[in-house]
Amino acid sequence: MSNHTTIWENARIATMQTGTGPYGLIDDGFIVVAGEQIQDIGSANPVHPIAGDVDSRRIDCGGRLITPGLIDCHTHLVYGGNRASEFELRLTGTSYADIAAAGGGIQSTVQATRNEAEDVLFDAARERLQRMISQGITTVEIKSGYGLDTDTESKMLRIAQRLERDLPLCVHKTFLGAHALPPEYAGQPDNYIDHVCQHMLPAIASESLVDSVDAFCETIAFSNEQTRRVFTAASDLGLPVRLHADQLSDSGGASLAAEFAALSADHLEYTNAAGAKTLGAAGTVAVLLPGAFYYLGETTRPPVKAFREYGVDIAVATDMNPGSSPMESILLALNMACILFALTPEEALRGVTVAAARALGVLQDRGTLEPTKRADFAIWNAAEPAELCYPIGAPQPACVVKSGQVLTGHLS
Amino acid sequence: MSNHTTIWENARIATMQTGTGPYGLIDDGFIVVAGEQIQDIGSANPVHPIAGDVDSRRIDCGGRLITPGLIDCHTHLVYGGNRASEFELRLTGTSYADIAAAGGGIQSTVQATRNEAEDVLFDAARERLQRMISQGITTVEIKSGYGLDTDTESKMLRIAQRLERDLPLCVHKTFLGAHALPPEYAGQPDNYIDHVCQHMLPAIASESLVDSVDAFCETIAFSNEQTRRVFTAASDLGLPVRLHADQLSDSGGASLAAEFAALSADHLEYTNAAGAKTLGAAGTVAVLLPGAFYYLGETTRPPVKAFREYGVDIAVATDMNPGSSPMESILLALNMACILFALTPEEALRGVTVAAARALGVLQDRGTLEPTKRADFAIWNAAEPAELCYPIGAPQPACVVKSGQVLTGHLS
Repeated sequence: MSNHTTIWENARIATMQTGTGPYGLIDDGFIVVAGEQIQDIGSANPVHPIAGDVDSRRIDCGGRLITPGLIDCHTHLVYGGNRASEFELRLTGTSYADIAAAGGGIQSTVQATRNEAEDVLFDAARERLQRMISQGITTVEIKSGYGLDTDTESKMLRIAQRLERDLPLCVHKTFLGAHALPPEYAGQPDNYIDHVCQHMLPAIASESLVDSVDAFCETIAFSNEQTRRVFTAASDLGLPVRLHADQLSDSGGASLAAEFAALSADHLEYTNAAGAKTLGAAGTVAVLLPGAFYYLGETTRPPVKAFREYGVDIAVATDMNPGSSPMESILLALNMACILFALTPEEALRGVTVAAARALGVLQDRGTLEPTKRADFAIWNAAEPAELCYPIGAPQPACVVKSGQVLTGHLS
Repeated sequence: MSNHTTIWENARIATMQTGTGPYGLIDDGFIVVAGEQIQDIGSANPVHPIAGDVDSRRIDCGGRLITPGLIDCHTHLVYGGNRASEFELRLTGTSYADIAAAGGGIQSTVQATRNEAEDVLFDAARERLQRMISQGITTVEIKSGYGLDTDTESKMLRIAQRLERDLPLCVHKTFLGAHALPPEYAGQPDNYIDHVCQHMLPAIASESLVDSVDAFCETIAFSNEQTRRVFTAASDLGLPVRLHADQLSDSGGASLAAEFAALSADHLEYTNAAGAKTLGAAGTVAVLLPGAFYYLGETTRPPVKAFREYGVDIAVATDMNPGSSPMESILLALNMACILFALTPEEALRGVTVAAARALGVLQDRGTLEPTKRADFAIWNAAEPAELCYPIGAPQPACVVKSGQVLTGHLS
């Protein structure tokens, strides 16, 4: 990276800093970027370039809106196959049980992910990620969980690591070995959890492929006790945890996540007020995933009012996955968070910036626009922040800047 | 247009012809295009180019899926302003009544559309339409209805006409003077309907700016009797009609539309079985608009089973408009029709091809892929038709062909 100074000026800046009015808005604003960092941010006349810095330049943003680079803090975007046929079967009347019995559902994705070559999976994930970047994403979380054996889980996370190296964006790698029971362990969930804790997780963590550990705590997945064992193993390795919690039933997942001071508890449709209170007390971020809610035709909504009451930070993510949320668009997730969960546009935008950065443990570096943070931002063909939430899937960013460099787009 | 022959080969073709199996699929198919028309379509070895036609060429579609060019048969895509602020007010607790009292709602769009210069409205609509074309649209319906005076209604329809001339796609122009009551006629809906029937419609029709006439029959808009007068005036001018019917209450709108042998009855969330039966008997197409259903948080669904039972053709459209369906994506409408209204993927795809063509009265020319029809088609980065419905807003077409010419994209 070069160390020249760039001044992005004539912009409306939603800094997303709290305590500075709605969206932390700065009118007629500028951002001074030095190398990969924000050096200064303010209103009206920007500082002059540092004397002697011959590389310094000014870029006129034409009055456009700037937000922090968006952060998608919950995705399963590395996978093989697709589930279009299953979708068609479901809608033409085949029961879920019959589809599962025929090897459909998550098991079909596990088989396809195991069978597919690493480069093929990489190329498909890279294409998805590029489309997501074009929507303003500069940081993404990617989970394993379609391998359910050491080799394939490791393959998925290596792909996540390669994506970070190949594309100029930040990738948070989450180990989700406890996503579903692999066919080899049918009827032996405890044995599988033993394997996850004693073999898979230590092996994969030793390759530095894990930033956090996730599990799916649900009647159709793993019990609270099994989840607890995974979390204990993660904690023993010094790894933070997060949890798929209370998506389809109130299983006390939120409280379990809070007990381990999880970075995030995700889904939470069935979380009760007591669970919300524990999240607030633990500082665990509630990650809402309206795509899965929409796609599964759910009607029970996460307790947004209780989250507000107990000061729980609310993030919003795509849950991009081939089964229950085949949706790449973070902008659509923003819209759905407003329409389906009645978040305000400001809450929704916090959900893909500040709160999402906290859910990934990177708020000191990203999530708001302020000096010393990484220069990750999106410049939108819009004037009002609410315009990012209101039209479905629009507007697009004119330009996405990552660590000070233009990732995609241009200002014309 | 040149008259050379082009053979699009090595494709999976969803002809959408009925009686030929699901989607009218042809494997290993070809389409021979002569000028603007489909000359031949079939499987395996295409006919050889006509002897002496030195311009003939072959294009390898790489096994991709081809569908008819998609048809969005219900949009309000010419308008001024945007309603992002109103969206934010609603979600931060301001009541709809207070927003309306402050000049919000449809009246704010009417004011913005009246005040905006024709070229500015044209440019904004053109941008929207180009994004829609990139999703595979080759025919679109555009309604007036944000003018509510002769000058502005005429301005909107002139823009629709210019869009057709400027962009290589087909535009169906619908006069929707009876969309809402303009402020000049507050408290005098019958007088406004008189004005619509006796002055606006004849004046605008005389400029050849109208292909069909629409009205909004609803408790918050116009009564059945007022709608009947508009339809009678349209019929007197030889213009076909369509209707915004039964969206928010069962007002007998479907039956009214059927009584006038309307091309389509649109929305229909509250239509009862008897209403569905009248549509079937009249051959009126039911146009489902899941975007507005989603956006308004509705819970009553259109009677899809009754439509099937009574042989009602079901179309699907975006309802693109700045208030209740700020959604440009026909692919998202397809997905929503499946997820929210439980259409099968095949029904949904029929809804944006065959049935949409019938709703616009152009089925003899478009809507399926067969000889003598216009060569409008989209070539998708997909193999299965269900892939157009299953991932949200994806895949995109590799290439869109309109009247035999490549409109956007390329095959690589």
